[in-house]
Amino acid sequence: MLNFEFYNPTKIVFGRDTIAKLNGLVPHDARVLILYGGASAQKTGTLDEVKAALGKREIHEFAGIEPNPSYETLMQAVEQVRAQKIDFLLAVGGGSVIDGTKFVAAAANFEGEAWDIAVKRGANITSALPFGSVLTLPATGSEMNNGGVVTRKSIQAKLAFHSPLVFPQFSILDPTKTFTLPPRQIANGVVDAFVHTVEQYLTYPVQGQVQDRFAEGLLLSLIETGPKVLAEPDDYDARANLMWVATLALNGLIGAGVPQDWATHMLGHELTAQYDIDHARTLAIVLPSLLSVRRNSKRAKLLQYAERVWQITEGSEDARIDLAIQRTRDFFESLGIKTRLADYELGQDAVETVLGQLDKHGMTALGEHQDHTLAVSRTILEAAL
Amino acid sequence: MLNFEFYNPTKIVFGRDTIAKLNGLVPHDARVLILYGGASAQKTGTLDEVKAALGKREIHEFAGIEPNPSYETLMQAVEQVRAQKIDFLLAVGGGSVIDGTKFVAAAANFEGEAWDIAVKRGANITSALPFGSVLTLPATGSEMNNGGVVTRKSIQAKLAFHSPLVFPQFSILDPTKTFTLPPRQIANGVVDAFVHTVEQYLTYPVQGQVQDRFAEGLLLSLIETGPKVLAEPDDYDARANLMWVATLALNGLIGAGVPQDWATHMLGHELTAQYDIDHARTLAIVLPSLLSVRRNSKRAKLLQYAERVWQITEGSEDARIDLAIQRTRDFFESLGIKTRLADYELGQDAVETVLGQLDKHGMTALGEHQDHTLAVSRTILEAAL
Repeated sequence: MLNFEFYNPTKIVFGRDTIAKLNGLVPHDARVLILYGGASAQKTGTLDEVKAALGKREIHEFAGIEPNPSYETLMQAVEQVRAQKIDFLLAVGGGSVIDGTKFVAAAANFEGEAWDIAVKRGANITSALPFGSVLTLPATGSEMNNGGVVTRKSIQAKLAFHSPLVFPQFSILDPTKTFTLPPRQIANGVVDAFVHTVEQYLTYPVQGQVQDRFAEGLLLSLIETGPKVLAEPDDYDARANLMWVATLALNGLIGAGVPQDWATHMLGHELTAQYDIDHARTLAIVLPSLLSVRRNSKRAKLLQYAERVWQITEGSEDARIDLAIQRTRDFFESLGIKTRLADYELGQDAVETVLGQLDKHGMTALGEHQDHTLAVSRTILEAAL
Repeated sequence: MLNFEFYNPTKIVFGRDTIAKLNGLVPHDARVLILYGGASAQKTGTLDEVKAALGKREIHEFAGIEPNPSYETLMQAVEQVRAQKIDFLLAVGGGSVIDGTKFVAAAANFEGEAWDIAVKRGANITSALPFGSVLTLPATGSEMNNGGVVTRKSIQAKLAFHSPLVFPQFSILDPTKTFTLPPRQIANGVVDAFVHTVEQYLTYPVQGQVQDRFAEGLLLSLIETGPKVLAEPDDYDARANLMWVATLALNGLIGAGVPQDWATHMLGHELTAQYDIDHARTLAIVLPSLLSVRRNSKRAKLLQYAERVWQITEGSEDARIDLAIQRTRDFFESLGIKTRLADYELGQDAVETVLGQLDKHGMTALGEHQDHTLAVSRTILEAAL
């Protein structure tokens, strides 16, 4: 097992009818800015429920945080925070809204151009406004971690940042708030949580028995829950399991003490930045291909994955690995998520473009061994055509 | 899944050579009281290493916190804290030292008689000194939770208390510090972590898929690691897995959103208070018997346990349950932990005495359904003779 530090102070308030607890979680004298995405927060009544729970506090709103939140939009929120002397932020939405709120929290008091936060990956964050979240879309884990991703449209860049200062103080997870989500977003959430887990699991063995068991537990839960959440949108327990699994898949726990990959995400981010493909879909395109191409350095864990997650115990090593990858691809496809670049009408041109962007962003030594070069990315992307 | 809140702000610093990190974890102007148990902290050099890491801070020491820490001893530490104007506590030891330190932290500024903290189960704690821990004995999980147990010798009472104010700020977990532990303490640690997990798992199903998978992962890890930690005391990875598993078994995570039992602990506490049997050994006596007696209300989970933890899939329901309980008992015995009251030279007299104490302490409606009466406890204890 590798040395590690684990710290996660976010309070999770989970279950039915938990939005009312906001009153005990947000300071009573706070000047609150509620940040959210589109019209769905209003249409579903969640926004009204949030405002009712906040009672007589001074409340302002910022709408319009888009999927893959843009620097351009978030800086408008920063201006509003400064103008209205906001001292508490409340994200109401999914990972994009929460990521965006983290950026706003860090940028509010940042000196200099705030894009530097993304360029420096958050290392230059020295203070942040306190904030909480009301999660409405299970997927990214942003509700219980200290990272975010921000996109700058003008230069087609999508960059991740981290800081211990941008943990949410609390996150409210009410599974009933996901009942009205479109199937596309639910399917994306399942795949997103699945790939988050795989990035921290399918590397090389370091005798992290409990980390492995936990990662396998998350994957098994997703395989069990995935079809149910799509087939029965108001199955509370299925939605609850997806919501809690997605949070646990990226709250630092399963990655503590083990190597991590994240190359699938780096390639995926470029696909989203260039072609506006949903984040989870880019992961579903890259992952099966990456696992196949990287089978030698991931061999021991791929065989363990085949056995413990897919109950594949017969055949040669490569046959078991091939079958496990096929099952993974089939699982994504069964959720309605296409796994080939061609399915998104992308071909060799896109491969060249993505490779150019990876090079430009310094993504030339990725993966758990830092030996995932541009040449490896080329093989993976071409195998994903 | 049940509604839940999860909050755990303890920072874990895990791995080799991590004691040196104390310098960055304890405030530089702190007046520190180091609390520890017996001579082993000195003999192994851990205490010197801790003091060296603390550098020029003002350091005081309190030695002699015993297994099942006593109110009488802890109040001496409280007097020292007050006399020396201590403002930071550092526990160096196992669960007893950390539990004791939590009590001292809460008692230091408590108004009135501090035993009331135990009587009120911690609900009356309104402030506590900040503290951290250096864990040397994996077992109780106290290093990453907000509970403790304190014993008052004069009235043979052993009571648990909880408060969000007594989370350690940090805990340092260096598996190499466990290399010199006697086999008895290591075996106790395996059983303690095992039973902590079972108390939160073997109840009734609430569709907590991920909680179940995580609990099963902890149990499988203990079954894999248990023999290794005893056979090869300096196997770093085996000790690391035991240490991290024991922490995760009682940090609130696997119990969030699911029913919990804890009757095994309540009966075990009385056995320790009356007969001074090691905590883990009392759990090993009670658990197999309790699972057998309570098989009807725990049936669905016992069958799941049989299948997923012990790979038992054949035979009638009761045959599978019997075999799973036998495997559990055999596992404890394989670690050198006896599982019958008779092994500790206790008979029917002890049953009557423990029942009397349970009655006296109001332990008359235990378990996940609060239907574990004194009559049920009698059946369990008699089956454990």
